[in-house]
Amino acid sequence: MPRVMRIGRVELKVLDLEKSVDYYTKIIGLQETGRMGDSVYLKAWDEFDHHSLILTKSNTAGLAHLAFKVETLEDLAYYEKQVEKFGCTTTRISRGARLGEGEAVHFILPTGHHCELYTEIDFLGTAVGTLNPHPWPLGAQGIAPHRLDHCLLTGDDLKTVTRFFIEALNFRQSERITSVDGEELLGSFLFTTNKAHDLAFVKGPDAKLHHAAFFVDSLHDVFKAADILSMYEVPFDVTPTRHGITRGETIYFFDPSGNRNEAFASGYMTYPDMPTITWTEDKIGQGIFYHRRELSESFMKALT
Amino acid sequence: MPRVMRIGRVELKVLDLEKSVDYYTKIIGLQETGRMGDSVYLKAWDEFDHHSLILTKSNTAGLAHLAFKVETLEDLAYYEKQVEKFGCTTTRISRGARLGEGEAVHFILPTGHHCELYTEIDFLGTAVGTLNPHPWPLGAQGIAPHRLDHCLLTGDDLKTVTRFFIEALNFRQSERITSVDGEELLGSFLFTTNKAHDLAFVKGPDAKLHHAAFFVDSLHDVFKAADILSMYEVPFDVTPTRHGITRGETIYFFDPSGNRNEAFASGYMTYPDMPTITWTEDKIGQGIFYHRRELSESFMKALT
Amino acid sequence: MPRVMRIGRVELKVLDLEKSVDYYTKIIGLQETGRMGDSVYLKAWDEFDHHSLILTKSNTAGLAHLAFKVETLEDLAYYEKQVEKFGCTTTRISRGARLGEGEAVHFILPTGHHCELYTEIDFLGTAVGTLNPHPWPLGAQGIAPHRLDHCLLTGDDLKTVTRFFIEALNFRQSERITSVDGEELLGSFLFTTNKAHDLAFVKGPDAKLHHAAFFVDSLHDVFKAADILSMYEVPFDVTPTRHGITRGETIYFFDPSGNRNEAFASGYMTYPDMPTITWTEDKIGQGIFYHRRELSESFMKALT
Amino acid sequence: MPRVMRIGRVELKVLDLEKSVDYYTKIIGLQETGRMGDSVYLKAWDEFDHHSLILTKSNTAGLAHLAFKVETLEDLAYYEKQVEKFGCTTTRISRGARLGEGEAVHFILPTGHHCELYTEIDFLGTAVGTLNPHPWPLGAQGIAPHRLDHCLLTGDDLKTVTRFFIEALNFRQSERITSVDGEELLGSFLFTTNKAHDLAFVKGPDAKLHHAAFFVDSLHDVFKAADILSMYEVPFDVTPTRHGITRGETIYFFDPSGNRNEAFASGYMTYPDMPTITWTEDKIGQGIFYHRRELSESFMKALT
Repeated sequence: MPRVMRIGRVELKVLDLEKSVDYYTKIIGLQETGRMGDSVYLKAWDEFDHHSLILTKSNTAGLAHLAFKVETLEDLAYYEKQVEKFGCTTTRISRGARLGEGEAVHFILPTGHHCELYTEIDFLGTAVGTLNPHPWPLGAQGIAPHRLDHCLLTGDDLKTVTRFFIEALNFRQSERITSVDGEELLGSFLFTTNKAHDLAFVKGPDAKLHHAAFFVDSLHDVFKAADILSMYEVPFDVTPTRHGITRGETIYFFDPSGNRNEAFASGYMTYPDMPTITWTEDKIGQGIFYHRRELSESFMKALT
Repeated sequence: MPRVMRIGRVELKVLDLEKSVDYYTKIIGLQETGRMGDSVYLKAWDEFDHHSLILTKSNTAGLAHLAFKVETLEDLAYYEKQVEKFGCTTTRISRGARLGEGEAVHFILPTGHHCELYTEIDFLGTAVGTLNPHPWPLGAQGIAPHRLDHCLLTGDDLKTVTRFFIEALNFRQSERITSVDGEELLGSFLFTTNKAHDLAFVKGPDAKLHHAAFFVDSLHDVFKAADILSMYEVPFDVTPTRHGITRGETIYFFDPSGNRNEAFASGYMTYPDMPTITWTEDKIGQGIFYHRRELSESFMKALT
Repeated sequence: MPRVMRIGRVELKVLDLEKSVDYYTKIIGLQETGRMGDSVYLKAWDEFDHHSLILTKSNTAGLAHLAFKVETLEDLAYYEKQVEKFGCTTTRISRGARLGEGEAVHFILPTGHHCELYTEIDFLGTAVGTLNPHPWPLGAQGIAPHRLDHCLLTGDDLKTVTRFFIEALNFRQSERITSVDGEELLGSFLFTTNKAHDLAFVKGPDAKLHHAAFFVDSLHDVFKAADILSMYEVPFDVTPTRHGITRGETIYFFDPSGNRNEAFASGYMTYPDMPTITWTEDKIGQGIFYHRRELSESFMKALT
Repeated sequence: MPRVMRIGRVELKVLDLEKSVDYYTKIIGLQETGRMGDSVYLKAWDEFDHHSLILTKSNTAGLAHLAFKVETLEDLAYYEKQVEKFGCTTTRISRGARLGEGEAVHFILPTGHHCELYTEIDFLGTAVGTLNPHPWPLGAQGIAPHRLDHCLLTGDDLKTVTRFFIEALNFRQSERITSVDGEELLGSFLFTTNKAHDLAFVKGPDAKLHHAAFFVDSLHDVFKAADILSMYEVPFDVTPTRHGITRGETIYFFDPSGNRNEAFASGYMTYPDMPTITWTEDKIGQGIFYHRRELSESFMKALT
C-alpha cells in the first residue's frame, strides 16, 4: 500500500475575505496565487504546488475541507476504493471546480469533516527555484513559514476516525491520549510522512477545527513569529512553549475570523515501525503544554 | 511499491576498537548495546532499534556495510526481487550472524559498496520511553545526536547507482550536481523518507565512504557539538556552516580511524513529487559549503 | 563618581535548607562553596568570587539582603558617605560576619530592603580558569547559568528609591513604568553596568522580593532551562516569553520556599547616556510580557 | 576616575563611496544619516547617536580614526589631561568639522592610529523609540546589527598601547596573548564597558586596521548574516565559528574596499575586577578560532 504524500491543502471559512487575505499575506507571510469566486488561494514560499490554503468567504469560521495529496492517479483510485471499503461514501469533484486543481475524491470523515484526496494540482515552484538555489528568499515578510504542516480537528469517536486513517489511508499513530485506565481515546496523532503528525484529533464536538499549523525552522523562528504577532496585535492563545506530544516548539494565535493558527517547529521524526507513545489523561497538561503542565480553558473551548 | 523505511545501520571498520568505542560513546554520545566477536554495537538515545552503528576491528578504516530497514517480510522479499531484477546478485544473511538482527538481504551496489535490506532487529526503545515521555533525557553526554541520519559514498558511475536506488528501491532524487552542460552526473542525493537525503553519492573512487552523519536538533546543537569536539581535540574537516545542498547546518570531523563523521541539523523536507534540484559544477562550492563557496582539498580527498 | 561594579550577592531566606541547596545545586546548577551557621554559600560556574547566593534557614521566605560590589576601599568609603548624605543610616559589618567576605557597609533602602556595599570577597575563579580557557565547562548540570543577574523588588515609594540609586549610588534608569498621565512611577529599572537592568522596583509592599534572576546565554538556553524545570516538576510562574521591558527572553519559577527565580537571556546594552524608556500603564501588559500582553495575577501577587 | 562610555564611531577610508554606501546600507543594514564633503554618515538601528560609522572617500582603504564617547565635558577635559600626562599630544577638533559632532580631543595612539574622545553628538534615537517600544523594528534589511561593537587594530608595541588605555583611559584588559614564556605581548583585549572587548590589538604593523565589528543578537543571527553575505556574494574571510578569546560567535568578511568587518554575537560579560585571561602563543589558534584551532594566512595578513 503506497503512502499518502502529505496534507496538501486546507480550505478555511473566513468572515471578511480581504481582512483575512491581508492577515495571511502580510502577517503569516503567504503568497496569494489566485482568486476564484469567493475564494483566495495562497501558498507558502517553500511549497511548489499552486496553493496549500484556500480562504473562502462564509458566515461562519471553520474548516471547509482538508485534502491529502497522493502520488499518482492509480493511488487516487486505490484510496478511493479503500475509503469506500471502510464505509465512507466518495464522490468525484471535477477538475476546475477550484482554481489550479485536477479531479479530487471527496468523502466525509467519521468525525464529520469534509476531506479530499487528489494528485493533480498546478505546479508553481518555490521562491528559491531548482537551479543552484539559495536556502531562503530575501525580502520575505511576516512569519514566512515553509509550508502548511498539519491540522488538529475535534470529534466524538476518535477510535473510529483513527481506524479510518490507519486502515483506509495507511496512516500510523505516533501518539495517543487515553483515560488513565486506557479505555477511552481522548487524542490521536496520525502521520503519513516522517513528521510527528500530519493530522490529529482531540475529543470534542464533531466537524470542528482546533487549528491549522504552519512549519517554521526553529525555536528562534517560533519566537520571532511571536514577536511579529505582538507587533501586529494578533490575539494569542498560547505563547511560546514546547509540546510534550511531538516535542514541537509552538505558538497558537487566531486569524481575524477566530480560526486558530499554529507556528510549529521541530518535532521528532516518525517511522512506520515506531511504537505509539501513550499519554494518560492525568498527564495531558504536560503532554499538551510541556512547561505550563496544565490545559487552559481557551485552548479547550475555542473551536471553529 | 512500498517505501523503504530508513537507513537503519552502518558498519564502520575501525583500527582500534576500544579507542573507537570511547570516541563514539563519550564524545558522540551513543550508547553501547552489545558486543560480538570483533564488533561493538551502538545506538543513539532517540533510536528504538538495537543498534544503528556497528564498529568492527579491521586493518583499514571504511564502510563494511550499510543497511536499509523495510517494514515487513513481504517488503523484504519484494525488494529482494527488485534488486535481482536490476541485475544485482543477492544473498541471504542468516539470523544471528550479527547481534540482535534477523535475516537480511545482501547485495553489492553498482558503486561497489556492501548493502543490505532487513526488517527484523531487536527492539530496545528510546531513552525517554513511550509513556508520558520527556522530550529529551537528562544526563546525556557528548554530542548526543537523535539518530543516524545518512551516508555519503563515492563511486564512479553515479547514473547507474542513482537508477538502482530509484528503480529497484523506490528512492527519489532530491538534488544532483552536474557538469555545466548537464551531461555528467557528479553528485546524487537520494531520499526514501521526507528528509533532504538518506543516502548520497559524489563522484570518486568506488566502494569508499565519504562520511556517516548523525542528526542533531538545531544550529545551536551543531555549534555545541563543535565546541565539544574542540574540548576533546577531535580533528575537524569542516567547522560550522550551511550546505547549499539540503540547506542543512553542519560540521565534519574524523573518528580515531579517520572515518569522517558529520553532525547535521535542519535540511528541508522532501516529498516524492518534488522536482529535483540541480547544482551545476561551477556552483558546486556554494552547493557544498554555502558560506565559503569553495571546496577544500581535504573534503574532496579524505575517504575511507 | 566611579561606577558600582555589579550586584554581587543576594541572601535568600529559605524554609528547608537542604531541600533548597538540592534545588539550587542540582536544578539551577550552582556550586556550593561553603557553609557557616544556618547558611549555605553558592556561586555560578562563570563567577570568580566566593559566592553570589547565600541561602539562610528562616521561618519565612524572602530576601535577607542584597549587596553591590565596588572596586576599591576608597569607593566603599565614598559610597558610604553618599548613602549617609542621602539620609540613610549606614553601619559597618565586620569581616568574618559571613564566610569569605571582608567588611561591608550596610543600610536600609527607602523601600525597606537590607542592602550592602562591599569590595572584599575571597576569589575562587570560574570553572574554566584563566589560562587558555574553554568557553564552557563540560559536565555542568541543571540550568547552569553564568551568574546572578539582577533582582526585582517591590516598594511603595519608587520615586525616592530611584532617586537614591541615581544620586547616592550613581545608577541610571533604563526604563520606567508610569501612570498614563505620567504622574505616578509604577516601575523603575536601574543599571550600573551595561546591562538592561541590575536592579528593578515595581510598586507594591515594602521590603518584599519579586524575584532573583540568573543569566543564561540565549533563547535556546532559556528554553532548555524550562524543559529541565518541567522534568524536575518545579512550579512555573511564567513559561518562555520575551519582556518588552529590557527585551530579555525569560522564564519565572519558584524555589522550594516560594522565592521566585528567573532565567534571563539577552536584553539590550545600556550606556549612561541612553534616554530612559517609558512604558505607560495602559501598555504595562506588553511591557512585562511582550507576547501575552497582559499581566497575570500570580505575577503581581506572589512576593516573598 | 570615570569610565569612558564606549567606542562611539569609526571612520573608514573607502575607495568607491557609493559602492560602499550601498554595501553598508543594503547588506550590513545601517541607515544613512547624512553626508558632508567626501563622507557619508551611518548608524545602526539600535544606536541613538547621529552616527557610528563614517565612510570617507580615499585612495587607500583603512581606518581614518576611531573615537570614544565620554559622559561629560568634565570627563573630556579630564581624559585630555590624562592623555597629555601619558605623553601623547592632544589637539581639539572644533564643532562642525564633521557632521552632527561637537568638539573632540584628538591624539595619536602609541600604535600610530588616530583616536579621538568626545561627548557631544546629535541625538537621533533608535528605530524603536523610547515610548512603549517594540523589541526590534519590522522591515530592517540586511544583517541589521544593533550597533558598532569594537575594533581590532595592529601595532608593534602592544605593551605601551595597553598601558596607555589602562593608565590614561581607565580601560581594563580582559585577555592577552603572550609568547609561551610570557615575555612578549602578542595580543591585548581591552574593555571599558562590560563587554568582552571594546578595542583590541594584535602584533603587526603600526596604524593598520584588522577589523571593525558589528553586534548581532545571537548565533542564529550570525548564521543568518552569513547566509545574507553569500546571497550578495560578499567575500568571506572566516565563516561561522566561535572565538576562544571572548567566547564570541563570529564571521569575518570584507567591505568593497577590503576593510574587514565582523558580525559578532555573545561574548562573556566583563567587570573591572576580573582577572586577565592569558592565551599562550602555542594555543593562539584555538584562542582565535576555537573550532579550527589554527590561524589562517588571510586572517593574519589582510590589513587595511
